[in-house]
Amino acid sequence: MAEVHLVRRERFCAAHKLWIPEWSSEKNKEIFGKCANENGHGHNYHLYVTVKGEPDPVTGMVIDLKILKRIIIEEVIDDLDHMNLDMDVEWLKGKPSTAENIAIAIWNRLMEPIREAGATLHQVRLWETENNIIDYYGQ
Amino acid sequence: MAEVHLVRRERFCAAHKLWIPEWSSEKNKEIFGKCANENGHGHNYHLYVTVKGEPDPVTGMVIDLKILKRIIIEEVIDDLDHMNLDMDVEWLKGKPSTAENIAIAIWNRLMEPIREAGATLHQVRLWETENNIIDYYGQ
Amino acid sequence: MAEVHLVRRERFCAAHKLWIPEWSSEKNKEIFGKCANENGHGHNYHLYVTVKGEPDPVTGMVIDLKILKRIIIEEVIDDLDHMNLDMDVEWLKGKPSTAENIAIAIWNRLMEPIREAGATLHQVRLWETENNIIDYYGQ
Amino acid sequence: MAEVHLVRRERFCAAHKLWIPEWSSEKNKEIFGKCANENGHGHNYHLYVTVKGEPDPVTGMVIDLKILKRIIIEEVIDDLDHMNLDMDVEWLKGKPSTAENIAIAIWNRLMEPIREAGATLHQVRLWETENNIIDYYGQ
Amino acid sequence: MAEVHLVRRERFCAAHKLWIPEWSSEKNKEIFGKCANENGHGHNYHLYVTVKGEPDPVTGMVIDLKILKRIIIEEVIDDLDHMNLDMDVEWLKGKPSTAENIAIAIWNRLMEPIREAGATLHQVRLWETENNIIDYYGQ
Amino acid sequence: MAEVHLVRRERFCAAHKLWIPEWSSEKNKEIFGKCANENGHGHNYHLYVTVKGEPDPVTGMVIDLKILKRIIIEEVIDDLDHMNLDMDVEWLKGKPSTAENIAIAIWNRLMEPIREAGATLHQVRLWETENNIIDYYGQ
Repeated sequence: MAEVHLVRRERFCAAHKLWIPEWSSEKNKEIFGKCANENGHGHNYHLYVTVKGEPDPVTGMVIDLKILKRIIIEEVIDDLDHMNLDMDVEWLKGKPSTAENIAIAIWNRLMEPIREAGATLHQVRLWETENNIIDYYGQ
Repeated sequence: MAEVHLVRRERFCAAHKLWIPEWSSEKNKEIFGKCANENGHGHNYHLYVTVKGEPDPVTGMVIDLKILKRIIIEEVIDDLDHMNLDMDVEWLKGKPSTAENIAIAIWNRLMEPIREAGATLHQVRLWETENNIIDYYGQ
Repeated sequence: MAEVHLVRRERFCAAHKLWIPEWSSEKNKEIFGKCANENGHGHNYHLYVTVKGEPDPVTGMVIDLKILKRIIIEEVIDDLDHMNLDMDVEWLKGKPSTAENIAIAIWNRLMEPIREAGATLHQVRLWETENNIIDYYGQ
Repeated sequence: MAEVHLVRRERFCAAHKLWIPEWSSEKNKEIFGKCANENGHGHNYHLYVTVKGEPDPVTGMVIDLKILKRIIIEEVIDDLDHMNLDMDVEWLKGKPSTAENIAIAIWNRLMEPIREAGATLHQVRLWETENNIIDYYGQ
Repeated sequence: MAEVHLVRRERFCAAHKLWIPEWSSEKNKEIFGKCANENGHGHNYHLYVTVKGEPDPVTGMVIDLKILKRIIIEEVIDDLDHMNLDMDVEWLKGKPSTAENIAIAIWNRLMEPIREAGATLHQVRLWETENNIIDYYGQ
Repeated sequence: MAEVHLVRRERFCAAHKLWIPEWSSEKNKEIFGKCANENGHGHNYHLYVTVKGEPDPVTGMVIDLKILKRIIIEEVIDDLDHMNLDMDVEWLKGKPSTAENIAIAIWNRLMEPIREAGATLHQVRLWETENNIIDYYGQ
């Protein structure tokens, strides 16, 4: 059978800072550099979600793109877009908002709904800038 | 030995619509959404073909890029560029022209000629828009 | 006073062909080349609309971006996206759908609504491919 | 003589929100939409600075690019990158941080130093997202 | 009447160095920095040629794109692509190969042939990297 | 445990030619095409380095990005940027400077320093033009 991967891109603009409250300001700046500016900074994040599955023999689609788009919007983008990732998002709290941690948390949000829609989540790619990208494939 | 992957991009502009003739117009529009506009729409498709192999110890090349380019142009681009994918392309007929089905059909066109040229086809990536991409690795 | 230009990008995917019905098939192909394929081809068009004006001294905005976006969507994108430019669009009929003619027609659709919203249309840029772009500044 | 325009791109990542303190939360959200999230959001801004002048007849350069780069970094990027535009930047205070207002303020920072370096500032382009761009040419 | 601008992009890959033979190696490095590496370096240049004119009332085209493309290829790209700009190109000799000087020389190559083809050259944009761009509008 | 991939992009501009000194000029041109121009040509190379590892449970980082960036700059970019790959770079000598060979050599430079920094090199992607890319995953 022919397994196919489908990649869907969505975007969100958000503020954050890298900061561990148990650490001094000096230690935060030593470890996180300019990402530890106390009033925060922000990014235009690009999120690429890859799902895999066999195309339906009739429709030729791995997944109904309208459904995949709705899952990503409802589970992720509505919570993150034009938000402060550290202050506004329940499911990101308690850990520094590195791109690594955000990508893992997005994976955990998307895995079940995509399975229920009949496909398998394969990769979450989080593009923070043209120079810094994170890929996560689950555990 | 050192296996290397080489990615070659080519592009084509084409019209298509998603439409199953056995279905009513209503059902086509319910399933395929705005992609089922009866007079068609179109895209600037980007095709990324990845081949793998060991670089020739003398030339340092996995495959002669002139040959790979010629194969992609002759087997795929000449048939698809500035065409209607549903009406003009024999090897796409009989199935809806989803990006999934196009990517699989392109793989089937390229696999043998690339093998004859001494490399192995690894991936066909079909970029339909900045938001929708298909990857296919064969069966 | 400080006049500022604001550029808004929207996109649409559409089919078209370049074809003059009074001409023979041969003449159409001689003049328009592969753009005269009889069953059409298509593009991912990018539309950049530039308006100018003085930022409001309180809000700091040339125009309410929500209003500008709504004008572009309602006047242009809703009519063009996932459509056949030659068959589905009343305001493009009667002329070949060159990027030049589309850009002029888009300008004529947008000029008045943008003026009523308090700004001045400055430029319509229509990006057809990475290699072909049209700019129009009105008459 | 041959006047030439030179464009230099630099980038910065920053947090901000659109918010007028004299207004209620409701009015801020009505006017500025999701840009008025109280904890802020952010962007990867791209700044394009265009200067003009005649190339030096010996070196063939409009301006020493090392000097232009240093001016942009020292006058603008060092103050904005990984900062909160509303809280950390003296020269942006007192007005909403719309892209319009940021572009005008950047122009005012750059005009004199570029003149002293022997060229003329022609345009400040501030790219906030792929969809929203501001151009400013001075008064 | 409706004057329209048409932009055509072509690309070339070339080697060059910035070097004035009358100067010492030290002075060349002081003025041109790392661009004065003696064995050269290189770029993927993007050339954007903008012409203007009124669309033909029948064909809707400012200029036959096949003709414009041929002019750019024959007058510029064939001479520059996969060449050393300082050693292989007669019409660039005698001056440092700054992007400024290359853009002016390209303008001088294109102006007459484009006029003979019935349009007017408006701008030559030479993109050297994502960060450095030159625009030239003629004298 | 949660293994994460982190991709870092750096860029360099360099000259090179494809040329085997034991071959005649004719044979070099037959095999390497326009890449065998004797005075060289050049590219804006983009280098994507992917490392993998588990994010630190406290900092949430796979690797300190400042350290990864320093390794790539010191081991690769400082040697290649604004250089002639065939004449200036000891660790590229003796083989044609195909993108395949450059990618393998970059992998060999980076593998140990990245391991010492606590992560694992996963992929070297070398982007030569928008159309030609090499991926290498080690032996």
